[in-house]
Amino acid sequence: MSSTIQKILQLCERQCFIQPVKDSLDLVEYFKFGFAGELLKNNVHQEWMLGVVINADENVFPFHSCKSASRDIIKDFSEPFEYVKKLNNAQLPFGITETRQDVRDTIDSSLQEEMRYFYPKKHTTLLSCIFAKPGNAMQRFYQWQRQRKMWWRKLNSIVRIRSEHVIPYIKIILLLLLQFSASPGRFSLTDIQNMPEAQLVEIKAEFPWGSQTVETIRYFGAKPFENSGDEHKTIFEVKDGRKKVLPHIIESVISLDTSVMVFVCDAFDEPLFLDSPRQVTRFHRKLAPYKVSFSASSSSATVGEELSELSLFLTKQLRNAGISTLLLPDVARKSLESQFARNDELGIPYTIVLNDATLRNGIVGMRSRDTTLKEQVHVYELKTYMEKLLKNY
Amino acid sequence: MSSTIQKILQLCERQCFIQPVKDSLDLVEYFKFGFAGELLKNNVHQEWMLGVVINADENVFPFHSCKSASRDIIKDFSEPFEYVKKLNNAQLPFGITETRQDVRDTIDSSLQEEMRYFYPKKHTTLLSCIFAKPGNAMQRFYQWQRQRKMWWRKLNSIVRIRSEHVIPYIKIILLLLLQFSASPGRFSLTDIQNMPEAQLVEIKAEFPWGSQTVETIRYFGAKPFENSGDEHKTIFEVKDGRKKVLPHIIESVISLDTSVMVFVCDAFDEPLFLDSPRQVTRFHRKLAPYKVSFSASSSSATVGEELSELSLFLTKQLRNAGISTLLLPDVARKSLESQFARNDELGIPYTIVLNDATLRNGIVGMRSRDTTLKEQVHVYELKTYMEKLLKNY
Repeated sequence: MSSTIQKILQLCERQCFIQPVKDSLDLVEYFKFGFAGELLKNNVHQEWMLGVVINADENVFPFHSCKSASRDIIKDFSEPFEYVKKLNNAQLPFGITETRQDVRDTIDSSLQEEMRYFYPKKHTTLLSCIFAKPGNAMQRFYQWQRQRKMWWRKLNSIVRIRSEHVIPYIKIILLLLLQFSASPGRFSLTDIQNMPEAQLVEIKAEFPWGSQTVETIRYFGAKPFENSGDEHKTIFEVKDGRKKVLPHIIESVISLDTSVMVFVCDAFDEPLFLDSPRQVTRFHRKLAPYKVSFSASSSSATVGEELSELSLFLTKQLRNAGISTLLLPDVARKSLESQFARNDELGIPYTIVLNDATLRNGIVGMRSRDTTLKEQVHVYELKTYMEKLLKNY
Repeated sequence: MSSTIQKILQLCERQCFIQPVKDSLDLVEYFKFGFAGELLKNNVHQEWMLGVVINADENVFPFHSCKSASRDIIKDFSEPFEYVKKLNNAQLPFGITETRQDVRDTIDSSLQEEMRYFYPKKHTTLLSCIFAKPGNAMQRFYQWQRQRKMWWRKLNSIVRIRSEHVIPYIKIILLLLLQFSASPGRFSLTDIQNMPEAQLVEIKAEFPWGSQTVETIRYFGAKPFENSGDEHKTIFEVKDGRKKVLPHIIESVISLDTSVMVFVCDAFDEPLFLDSPRQVTRFHRKLAPYKVSFSASSSSATVGEELSELSLFLTKQLRNAGISTLLLPDVARKSLESQFARNDELGIPYTIVLNDATLRNGIVGMRSRDTTLKEQVHVYELKTYMEKLLKNY
């Protein structure tokens, strides 16, 4: 087993992300998510909803299916299609998504051991189908590939050094130091493969131990209708302007569980710190389970108590603004470095550091996970500043 | 069957919210969600996450369980508890939530028919446990009741007439006209019942056909540990300051499926419009499946075409800002009134109305679902204005 993936799995268990549960053949049966993994999974799912359902070019209508896919796209979609066709005035284009609890029948047991972690037997499938106009379906297929690739790239863990953080020459040094971390080119499209039933493109993620399919996109055209009965053809018949046509189908499939695993692997990094490697998960701030945490270093127990109270006040303020914040009771007890190390492993982008001076001048340090540098912020501005930082991609 | 609930179920099916699936005994087996229901369910779930996990007074750690609850709180929570105890430095208080696919063993078949819709056999349970300090657990129990009641009240469908919408005297008339709609007092707490194993409080929703339990809150104290083995006591033993204690447990349970049904019933209204009743679902804007829709009335096909293109442009802008927007191809074809009627049934808070003049002066009408009044907004300001409107509760 590659030592990197071993380290990732150990970190996952230590920080309560995911724990692969194996069967008697040593294949990954499913992922058990801990609290950090649940928060991450929820964020991945919401980003998928945003990208594929809410911010889509067509109207996209989400459905949920209790049954596993039959792999017959016509049968699987006929019921939701009828609903949506009526609402959409039988006009193309539109989209339908389905969330499914799927079971993989066969796992290739000859697969390299570390690759098996990406294919749990039981997992949640997020499937989306675009029903396009025959005339521009091919164009939509290419555009869709680009859009999906961008979705993956947008959420990957490239280190973003904001110019406010550092003076120029430090910035250059940092960029050089950090350039070995997660690359934006990790996610790429394969060439189109011509299969009997569809044209197929995959989005792959490159890892040191090999490449991993994260999304499969198929362009079926109107082929699925060729072997289906007249009854189905009537259901799926729609209008393209005034012509009656059968829609051309573009299907896209990701596994929610695999995606969570991929984003953890993507985020994992081991930069050197004081000559020894430190483990960090550089989650994109939209995906990070927690966005902010608090630490304090104080000269006395009384000051420590006051700093804990201030941390609690600021935490409530951030949480009230919907910002996921971790406040642990060790704030003023454990060493700063051990708190930073844990926050880095949990992938928390910012740690707010309070000290004796904070009580006098109201200034806190905002330590960045990615640069390990501290920026000074006044407590009155913290909420607004955090909201601004977390708003954009 | 009460005629109101019959109307609600017909609307649910017509607009693709939920469809109760019944078993051979005519009891609701589960809810099948359509696209509008899926969006609503996702919004209810996210609001629960915000209220119970992210914006909680304690650190709350979300978990997921594949198995149904054993109703033995100690057994169910011992594994997540061990993780969280370690992270939280064995200090109280903290919280743990679990999402479960539950099956109700017994449904009271003597239940009034309309009440059965609130108790599907298979449903998703959202469970949260606060592990409180023995010294202030009782106080936390009362505080928790208030917080949960406020969560329900905050999201209910009371008509909010914003002062910008209307001149004062119209506002007063509207308030009088609309006061028969959903009341903020729909959700209330029952008295505390003393059960052998816990003190129990329910949050109930009042409907014309009776009252419905929407959340059950139990204060167990440390009772669950009395009958559990020493092994469990060791797992659950934590520190309150320097003392070793067993936590006091406050548990809160809602059904996600029931909640969606409750919010649909809460939102349903039949105000008179031109002397005939029109059906509206007055969802809180945070819950509404779609926040905005577009309609156009044009004098000619050419203008209609241009207005459709402008609608598409504005839709993309709103979607890009993460605002769920419905744009149907009937924009310039069906009558405005029939589009408004559909949007009101889908619970869309705002419909943007474009007309011939819009192409000249850039002004659109923003029709409110709740007041049916139109406000004028310039297309350049639409996105910012919508973001502001949708931000707050």
